[in-house]
This record gives sequence, structure tokens and C-alpha cells, in this order.
Amino acid sequence: MDSDKLHLNGSRLESSIRELGEIGRETGGGLYRTAFSQADLKGREWLKTVLHAEGISIRTDEAANIWGSIPGSIPKLPPLVCGSHLDTVPNGGKFDGALGVLLALEVLRTLKDAGHQTRHPLVLVSFSAEEPNAYGFSTFGSRAASGKLSSRQIRDARSNEGRLLSEALEEAGGDPGNLERAAIPPGALAAYLEVHIEQGKRLLRQRVPLGIVSSITGIYREQIRLKGEANHAGTTLMSDRRDALAAAAEIILAAEEICRLAPAPEVVGTVGMIGVTPGAANIIPGEALLTAEFRAATEAQMEHLLAAWDKALRRAAETREVKITRTPILKQSPVPMDRGIMMIAERQAERLQVPAMTLGSMAGHDAAHMASVTRSGMLFVPSIGGKSHCPDEESRMADILCAGNVLLHTLLVLDQSLDQSLDGRDEAREGAV
Amino acid sequence: MDSDKLHLNGSRLESSIRELGEIGRETGGGLYRTAFSQADLKGREWLKTVLHAEGISIRTDEAANIWGSIPGSIPKLPPLVCGSHLDTVPNGGKFDGALGVLLALEVLRTLKDAGHQTRHPLVLVSFSAEEPNAYGFSTFGSRAASGKLSSRQIRDARSNEGRLLSEALEEAGGDPGNLERAAIPPGALAAYLEVHIEQGKRLLRQRVPLGIVSSITGIYREQIRLKGEANHAGTTLMSDRRDALAAAAEIILAAEEICRLAPAPEVVGTVGMIGVTPGAANIIPGEALLTAEFRAATEAQMEHLLAAWDKALRRAAETREVKITRTPILKQSPVPMDRGIMMIAERQAERLQVPAMTLGSMAGHDAAHMASVTRSGMLFVPSIGGKSHCPDEESRMADILCAGNVLLHTLLVLDQSLDQSLDGRDEAREGAV
Repeated sequence: MDSDKLHLNGSRLESSIRELGEIGRETGGGLYRTAFSQADLKGREWLKTVLHAEGISIRTDEAANIWGSIPGSIPKLPPLVCGSHLDTVPNGGKFDGALGVLLALEVLRTLKDAGHQTRHPLVLVSFSAEEPNAYGFSTFGSRAASGKLSSRQIRDARSNEGRLLSEALEEAGGDPGNLERAAIPPGALAAYLEVHIEQGKRLLRQRVPLGIVSSITGIYREQIRLKGEANHAGTTLMSDRRDALAAAAEIILAAEEICRLAPAPEVVGTVGMIGVTPGAANIIPGEALLTAEFRAATEAQMEHLLAAWDKALRRAAETREVKITRTPILKQSPVPMDRGIMMIAERQAERLQVPAMTLGSMAGHDAAHMASVTRSGMLFVPSIGGKSHCPDEESRMADILCAGNVLLHTLLVLDQSLDQSLDGRDEAREGAV
Repeated sequence: MDSDKLHLNGSRLESSIRELGEIGRETGGGLYRTAFSQADLKGREWLKTVLHAEGISIRTDEAANIWGSIPGSIPKLPPLVCGSHLDTVPNGGKFDGALGVLLALEVLRTLKDAGHQTRHPLVLVSFSAEEPNAYGFSTFGSRAASGKLSSRQIRDARSNEGRLLSEALEEAGGDPGNLERAAIPPGALAAYLEVHIEQGKRLLRQRVPLGIVSSITGIYREQIRLKGEANHAGTTLMSDRRDALAAAAEIILAAEEICRLAPAPEVVGTVGMIGVTPGAANIIPGEALLTAEFRAATEAQMEHLLAAWDKALRRAAETREVKITRTPILKQSPVPMDRGIMMIAERQAERLQVPAMTLGSMAGHDAAHMASVTRSGMLFVPSIGGKSHCPDEESRMADILCAGNVLLHTLLVLDQSLDQSLDGRDEAREGAV
């Protein structure tokens, strides 16, 4: 069969989405396949069973990432990898993460069925613990795979319920004492591709079935403590107050305003948590504790945001006589996706008559970490209603197949065009592919 | 001795403040004489022991209020009552409440020592559980005394730790099954006077040692639930958000603005509690729950405030597409103090050369409830630094004696001037005294 005409098996894909979507599903419909939970372990077993039945060789690395490989025809070529993650948030849906793994599986099955052997090994990956989880390590698997986690770092990590991460990891097949060995050396992979649901409404609004991701958002997150003065809510005149919550209200609105006025649409800011002390109806809050988060697609946007934010905080501290203490929690630079992969995906979408648009990912993904070890690309599938991280998470099968077929053919073009030497990296970057 | 020249015994008063101030004091200096705690029971025992030693007859009513009486010279005249409460907030100070009881005690002792028998019985009262407490009933004793509490109402009330209020009340000498019997019938008292610390800075700023209270603030308190839409903090564009916390921030600032712009200075508004759900750094708050409280010295001011507040809430609900649900918690009308008592206190302050100013009480007090059963008045003593409800709560002895002596002579004038019939109420109201 002409490989140009290969396409995924929609009904098989749909079955696998349905089957996996039952694992960890609770009454109410939400999935609780949270990282290293019993449901997560069951999901992993399901995947391994399917891979095994297909005769695909399986390896579980030290971070309990699952790798399923089909050998390539040319020895020594580095593998082409695609995948995502199987874990969900609590009360999550059946597409976030799972879709990327199941599309990778379907690509491998389709090529096997067609008897088409790629030049590079073709590898599915399911990364561990991508979602924010009880152990405090999101994108755990891809962080380890990109050499950003050490055994020492995770040694004492426990879930809220007191379970050691190292024990949970071991149960999932990982090796917490040798986590560093999960790191992939530079040049060891040919490329990484990930399909994911958009989790927003941009594709939907534009009525475009495919998103080609240009970059993964930068995230800056901090904890902010505002210290004013607790006082009697009756006897303290308005002019005598140093109300920590009123000061907090001012900066919450400032965060919103700064993002609304930002020149780029892909700039967002959120205060998602807040608490005050003493916390009584008749006491002026003496202290407020909150988190602030900003996201932007480029470093320049992020710098602009943070400068405006800093100014707003200083102004609030000054005019309201509150002391503001900031503790950064997360600083994640924006990660541009590989231009070469983007171009191939665009051309394949065009050839397959799939309307596509380029957009930045506003959520973090495993691909952001993988981009530090290999050329990486992402494709987005529209989310119905823009919903994610909830039982209502849904995508149309037709859209999913569009992304899946573009994924398949992007991999095939990469397989053909990447240099046969162990280092084809630079050529692809220069658009030689 | 000419009763005009009577004055309190400062060193005896100071000793009793010191002694009582040790009861419930913990390391760090704060008092934990919270309602019906072991320390509160110890404080009650201390008071009864002192009253007993003075030969003052003691009665504990169904609400565990303690009444200490000296008989008057004319049978059937209703008693003149003065007092306050002995319980404190957690980590409180030794003046709030205690001062009013100890000054009443010192007045009784001074008159006994001088051999001066009043025409009316002279009665000290220590009300139960005035402060906000774990059982959810503040001004418990004066509410019961003014007929506003029933046995049924308190039957199931428990502290946060699960202790039944009825059990606690019984242990303190009350009778939870017959709480209604604590209610004082109209006309049964001649007057109620209470000295209290100001808990604000107005006397201090004016350098005036005595405040004559014109009214006790009205308090409106409600719980507000703002329902927007929880969503992904990255993938939800600013223009697509229905952020419950941003809406809450808007109304928090509106509450402040409304009070700042109010025509009267004795108008305050506070948001003292707030919480959001889901409450994660990377999720837009779908719901915010907060309390709002407004205080004003007159009904007209309160109406003006609440109209502006209502408008602000409607505007926020509309512009931000959030649903706002309001649940009133407390509606307490402003309570004017008795004009006759105010005039007598003013004249006595003048005679004793004590500079005084008239001011509204911005805090609630037992006197607010007592005003519904008898003519009531309050005197304020300056709080150093305006501080209260904390270990640093302090007042100058000289100021305390000013208030105490004005209290003593106001009682003596009332004793002489109130009609000898059982109903002297109207004449005093009309300034005949």
C-alpha cells in the first residue's frame, strides 16, 4: 500500500478510547485516574496488555514511563517518539492525555497492519504523573526523561495522605533510587510528537479541526502574603484601617487588568487561591495569603507582564500601608516548538485537506520538557465547549481522526526526511526536511 | 459624708483589676476566659467570693448571669443596675467587659464603706457570654435578660468541639430548660449603666478621658456566595472568564468605597472572611464565599449604606455574569442610649471636672439589649492605642477613675431624681431628672 494513503482505523481508536475511559471512572462519570492511584496502575496494565498483544516490545523506565517500540529498518537510527500521559486530575475526563497515548497506539497498529516498517524505530510513550498531583510533582515522567529530576529530590516527597512518592513509583514499576537513569541523552531521540486536546475555545471559535502548536506557554506562579493590621471591624474607622483583604482585592483586579490590556491574546493571569487571618466576620483581616499566576507565549510578553505586576504590588503596598512578601513557586519559560515539525505538519494537513491553524498552548505539557532533549511538536484537537479537567471533557471523533492522520503522516515524512546519520538534528532545524 | 464628695478607691480597684486579670491568663499574656470555659468559671467564682465577703447578696439567673444586690432604703423601688461581662475573646485583654463589672463592684463597695444607702436597690450584674464564642451566641446573658432567647433556641447548640451549650450553661449555674425565666419584665429595673473601654481611637485623638455614649451601632451582617465558572487558568482567555474571585474583589472594594464616601464618620464596612473553590493556583475560582458587615449609628445611615451595597452587588453580578446569593446573618438596629442618663452623666462629668465627649459606640454591647427593658446608658474609657481583643489592651488608671466616679455620681443622681413610684420611666425620659 502506498504509505501516502495510510490512515488510522477510526472504530478501533474509538473502542480503545471507550475502554480506557472506563478505567477509574466513578459514579458521576468523572475519571479518578490520578497519578499512581490504583486506577492509574490499572490503566498502565491495560496499555501494556494491548501493546503486548500487538507484539510491541515494552520497557518501563526508572520514572515508570512506559515505552512501546517497533524496530526501524535502519539500525542505529534514533527513534521517533509519540505519546502523552494516562493519568487524570481528580474528576477528570477521558481525553486529556489519554488521547495522545491512544493515537500513538493507533499509529503503531496502523503501520503494523499495513506492514509498513519505518526507517527509524517508532516508539509510543506514556509519561507518568503529568497532571498536578498529591505528590507535588506534575509532568513527573517527562521531567525525569529530560534529566530534570534526581532521586534525592523526590526522596522525602509524600502525598497529602502520607504515602511516599518513592513507594508509589516503585509500585508502578519505577526505580526511585535510580531516577537519573531515566534521563535521555542528547541526540538519542529523532523527534517527539504529542497530540492533546486544546482545553480552550480558540479552535472551536475559528471552526478549525486542527491546531499546530507554535509554543508552550511560560508560567510564572508565586505566593503573595499581604500583612496589614487585624482590628475590630466596628471600632476601627475606615481611615484607620490597614485591611489586608482590601489590598488583596486591589491586586486581584490589577492582575486581571494587566492581562486584559496586554498586547497579545495569549496572556492570562489568575488568582486561584486566597485565605485571610484571623478570618472572622467582625475582624478586619490582618493578613491575606494568595497565589498569582501569569502565562505568556514569549519571554518578552512575560517580562512586560511581570514588570506591570511588580508596579501594581508596589503601589498597593504603598497606598494601603501593607507589607507584601512574594515567594516564587514556578518559573517556566515559554518553549517554542520545532519549526521543522510545524512546517511538515502544516503541509501534511494541507495535503489531507484538514484546515489547521497555528496557536500557542496555554497549558503546560510533557512536550515542553521533551523539547529540551529532542525536536518536539504538538497537535491540538478542539475541545467541545472548551472544557477539560472535568467529566464533560469531549472531542469529536472526526476532529480526532484529522489530528491522528496528520500525526501519522508527519511521522512518516520525518522518518523519510531526517538525516540517516545519528545527528540529523541541525538539518531538520534548518528546514531541510 | 456628703455623698457629692464620694469617690472610688483607686488602689482597691487597681488590685481587683490585677487579680481578675490573672484568671485565664496564659503564657504570652493573653486572657483565654472564653464563655463557659474553666477560666470563665474561675472568674465567676472570684466575683462571687468578693461579693460574698462584702456581704452583698448573690443570685445567679437561668442564663447564669450573676446579680449582686444591696437593698435600697425605699421598699418596692426597682433596682439601679450596673455592670458588664467577665468573659473574654481568645487571647483577649483584662479590660474589655471586666472593667464594667469591677467598676460596678467598686461603686457598691464605696457606698457600703461610706454607709450611704441608696433609695433604690443597687445591683451589680455580670452577663454571661458577651463575646462571640464557640457556641454561636454572643451577648448571650443580656439577650436572655431582655427576653430574646428561649430554651428551645439553644437546645441543640454546641461548641466547635461538640460541647452542648446547655451543659456548659448548667455548669456555670444556669438553667437551660427555663431560660425564658431570665427575662426581666418591663418596669422591673430603674436603669442600666455600663462602663466599657472604647476599643477605638476617638477619645485618644481628642485627648478626652471620658466618652458618653449616644447610641450603640446597628450591625448588618450577611454571607455572600458568588457563583461564576471554574476553569483552566491557562486555556481560558481573559475575555471568556467568569471569575468568582475577581467579582468578589470588586465588591470588597465597593464595600470600602461606600463606607468611605458615607456622610457620617461612624459608618464602617468590613469583609472579614473569604474562601474560594476549587482553590488551586491553576484554576479560575468558580465560587467565592465571603461575609460582609456594615455598621451605622442611625437607621437612616444604615438604609443608605445597604441601598448602595445592593446596587454594587447587582452591578458586579451583571457585568461579570456571576450569580450572587445573599444570606443575612445579623440585623441589629442602632440603639439610642437614654437621653436623660446622658444629660446626668454630662452634668456630673462637668461637676467633677472630667472633660467628656459624646460619641456612638461602634461595637455591640450588653447595654444594647438592656435598652429594650430599661433606660440604659454607657460610659467609655479611652483604650491606649485603640487596642482591644488582644493582650495589649490597656487603659490609664486615671481615665478609669474618671469614668468610675462619673458612673457613681450618675447613679446617685438617678437614685435621687427618678420617681419614687414603680414607674419613673417617662419622667426621666423627658429630662425631668
